[in-house]
Amino acid sequence: MALGRTYDREHCSAAWALEIVGERWSLLIIRNAMFAGSGRFTEFQRRLGVAPNILSTRLERFVETGLMEIRPVPGEQGVHEYVLTEQGLELQPVLVALTQWGDRWIAPHGPPIVYHHDDCGGEVRHHLRCDRCGQEPAPAEVLAHPGPGAPDV
Amino acid sequence: MALGRTYDREHCSAAWALEIVGERWSLLIIRNAMFAGSGRFTEFQRRLGVAPNILSTRLERFVETGLMEIRPVPGEQGVHEYVLTEQGLELQPVLVALTQWGDRWIAPHGPPIVYHHDDCGGEVRHHLRCDRCGQEPAPAEVLAHPGPGAPDV
Repeated sequence: MALGRTYDREHCSAAWALEIVGERWSLLIIRNAMFAGSGRFTEFQRRLGVAPNILSTRLERFVETGLMEIRPVPGEQGVHEYVLTEQGLELQPVLVALTQWGDRWIAPHGPPIVYHHDDCGGEVRHHLRCDRCGQEPAPAEVLAHPGPGAPDV
Repeated sequence: MALGRTYDREHCSAAWALEIVGERWSLLIIRNAMFAGSGRFTEFQRRLGVAPNILSTRLERFVETGLMEIRPVPGEQGVHEYVLTEQGLELQPVLVALTQWGDRWIAPHGPPIVYHHDDCGGEVRHHLRCDRCGQEPAPAEVLAHPGPGAPDV
């Protein structure tokens, strides 16, 4: 396939994304910031049960790479929290896709968590859709090709 | 928020999914099986540059959990390959969502890889959509609530 050599050199946005969010705990920390209202270091630690040194490393990396910002907590001197930026919030489809896959293939008693549209209360689900024909293709009907940012090989 | 305690106990399909595909190399191995035509152990190894012991552990785990099957290669005595099952193929939205996030926030020269619908050649993209109103909500408009499989807490 044409993509073999492209992938050899790891010119792939999924690989780059995993460099940032693929480490153990990373996506769970982002999930808690996005959906469970966590912001303070101690909240992440308590809810996730993650070792403080790992949590600290992950949060620092998120701030460095622009996924999170540190903000002072109003009215609490010296206390700050970690808040997702637009870049961090846009990982939502990754979390929803992972959740729906887990719901389908692992969840023993049905989905433990469902995502709702705040506006109308409907369920929010992920879809892969073809921009041209509007169909939602089966996995085997989706092919990867070199894009405009592919290296000249 | 209502979800705090649910997440405390990790009744979350995203967390369960990450137990299976969240380790280093896991999603890249699945990506190469899905899009780069890799199937044989030596192909994964050569294209990814992953250490054989790690690759071996990951592939065995995928077979155990049902993401992949081992199949003999026709006409080549004693040679087998690792093929994604339906369960494995359904991780496609996770890979596409990760790719699109990386395209938007990391890719320095535009998307290196684009996904196309084999049938019509259109671009396949990821969408979160509300089942009720049909809108594609912004991240802040999507809330997580306990679902039918939530533990009684």
